Amino acid sequence: MTSPALTATFALACELISRPSVTPEDSGCLELIASRLAPLGFRFERIDTGGVCNLWARRGDTAPILCFAGHTDVVPTGPLDAWDSNPFQPTVRDGHLHGRGAADMKTSLAAFVTAIEGFVAGHPDHQGSIALLLTSDEEGIASHGTVKVVEALAARGERLDYCVVGEPTSVKTLGDTIKNGRRGSLSGTLRVKGVQGHVAYPQLARNPIHEFAPALAELATIRWDEGNEFFPPTTWQVSNIHAGTGANNVIPGECEVLFNFRFASVSSADQLKQRTHAVLDRHGLDYMLDWHLSGKPFLTGRGELVAALTDAIRNIAGVETELSTSGGTSDGRFIADICNEVVEFGPVNATIHKVNECVAVDAIEPLSKIYEYTLRALLAAKRD
Amino acid sequence: MTSPALTATFALACELISRPSVTPEDSGCLELIASRLAPLGFRFERIDTGGVCNLWARRGDTAPILCFAGHTDVVPTGPLDAWDSNPFQPTVRDGHLHGRGAADMKTSLAAFVTAIEGFVAGHPDHQGSIALLLTSDEEGIASHGTVKVVEALAARGERLDYCVVGEPTSVKTLGDTIKNGRRGSLSGTLRVKGVQGHVAYPQLARNPIHEFAPALAELATIRWDEGNEFFPPTTWQVSNIHAGTGANNVIPGECEVLFNFRFASVSSADQLKQRTHAVLDRHGLDYMLDWHLSGKPFLTGRGELVAALTDAIRNIAGVETELSTSGGTSDGRFIADICNEVVEFGPVNATIHKVNECVAVDAIEPLSKIYEYTLRALLAAKRD
Repeated sequence: MTSPALTATFALACELISRPSVTPEDSGCLELIASRLAPLGFRFERIDTGGVCNLWARRGDTAPILCFAGHTDVVPTGPLDAWDSNPFQPTVRDGHLHGRGAADMKTSLAAFVTAIEGFVAGHPDHQGSIALLLTSDEEGIASHGTVKVVEALAARGERLDYCVVGEPTSVKTLGDTIKNGRRGSLSGTLRVKGVQGHVAYPQLARNPIHEFAPALAELATIRWDEGNEFFPPTTWQVSNIHAGTGANNVIPGECEVLFNFRFASVSSADQLKQRTHAVLDRHGLDYMLDWHLSGKPFLTGRGELVAALTDAIRNIAGVETELSTSGGTSDGRFIADICNEVVEFGPVNATIHKVNECVAVDAIEPLSKIYEYTLRALLAAKRD
Repeated sequence: MTSPALTATFALACELISRPSVTPEDSGCLELIASRLAPLGFRFERIDTGGVCNLWARRGDTAPILCFAGHTDVVPTGPLDAWDSNPFQPTVRDGHLHGRGAADMKTSLAAFVTAIEGFVAGHPDHQGSIALLLTSDEEGIASHGTVKVVEALAARGERLDYCVVGEPTSVKTLGDTIKNGRRGSLSGTLRVKGVQGHVAYPQLARNPIHEFAPALAELATIRWDEGNEFFPPTTWQVSNIHAGTGANNVIPGECEVLFNFRFASVSSADQLKQRTHAVLDRHGLDYMLDWHLSGKPFLTGRGELVAALTDAIRNIAGVETELSTSGGTSDGRFIADICNEVVEFGPVNATIHKVNECVAVDAIEPLSKIYEYTLRALLAAKRD
């Protein structure tokens, strides 16, 4: 058996980790990946904008399109002396490959490339198309990354059939969890207006804290929906409430409240907005409310992609995978606009965004094999 | 008719205003007053402490004791160029005597002295005792002022029968309002504890804002009492509420709330505390609550002092006076501990604590006459 450290996926992951692509830098990662895919007949399109590097690559002209999506940027390292080895010098220690991006998500990118290489070698005339959608702006503001490529594809009517996002979704062991959706995130900045005054003369004032209290109590106990098989019920949480200047004899004139919905795909952002306004209006509040939708929810049911990936994980890693929609937002929210089936799958995420980020060396090659298995399941031509 | 500007009260008020006794300074005001009362047979006691000057003066050894109470200190002037004349150079302009302390309350002090001079001249053998209780620490922290004199008197078992505090209580015209009580002021600093967490995982956190909301709504609507003839119902107001660090994806671990009761004498501070704790406990909150009683309430009913003062105002100023308990705290709260009947009465308060503080010149001598009338009503010996 070959030492894992000598596999093509391991070697490419190391090359990518060596490039210090702290968001929104790409540091040549996209060129390195393109140089590997060019000999396979991929066509490339760079959609760089706002200092962000984006790559759209495709092999084939027909449907179905299976796209691998991900990002070359990594989060900052924090203080270097907190690391046991230089985060941009890939280092194997205790059976793990260490370095910033090892888990999130340069090993996934390397596995995309070697999976495609392996699949194309065996199936040069596969049906449909293989695509890559890569960006250097996922960890940052994410306003010039995947969303821009999706807009460009949508503008010319291009849709994807399947998309695997290489986010590190595994929890304890490779393959134990894939994400078939994410909740939406809807934030509100509420300003309840009152009339300032002296606490000794409340009849001359209107206390916005008092006026808001019953509405707050009601909003905090509303059951917004029941969720569904994949999503927990929608939640509403106040993250900040502020009123008063510190003086303890003044009734404040305004109370500011920041809140956030994490919502299942069974509720829409518009429904949640309407129901919130209904409560505030029913309590007769004088208020201003600014909304910010930071992520629409998406959900991929038990279709062909989930079946193929689940089957791949079972066969390669010997693990029964679990479907999950927990966690924050990811670029899957953008891709779902132009793709029927979006699933996220990648390495164990225990060390992401931390010092000594790492991935188990013996999980690197299986990741590539799982992606390749999925390619075969969905794109191997009947005649192959 | 003598020009008002030449009256003894006007002259003494000007002398007092000339002394820049910004709290807690006395600037010799007490000595000036004592020098006027000494020839009348007053005995003096200085109870100076903590940098504050306090004077207790008494003429006579028997009951009843009628005490005049007040303060020589004034609030700071603020920027001098905002004044139309130097605040420590008493100036008559538009029929008003201008200067810091003109209304709050050096004119009252001058009127005390001339009222006593006039009364003693006509009633050298009056019944009971005349007293003065003066401090230079009413406008500041008020922890070394009147409260210390009251403690000293209480320690030796001395009680007062009647006390007139010279605070500026008139609203539009001299005599229209006297204060026969003040509400109490009880403040609370409440910290509701929760468990910090990510808004995406509320099941792993406990949001103190949400948990506090129903208790807040209940506290804001409680009818604490019905007040009485003299007091409006007790009120409860939140002046400040703060939770959250600004981040909109974090459930805060604590919510801090400052609130204040202004309470009628029909409720006690202990009752209000107990009822507040009962609400918080019933809602199952994990909290810390620090109390601060900044003023006990006091109330003087329609007894001899109110009757004498009301009669004096009617006869001297031709005004039907109104009893009021509104406004903030005053030194009356301390004196009420050792005195059955405490009433506050002084000049129009429209300009107090402001630039161009002033008192109507033609209201100065009537103020002295009202105090003198009150002395006659309560202390003129039967044989006079």
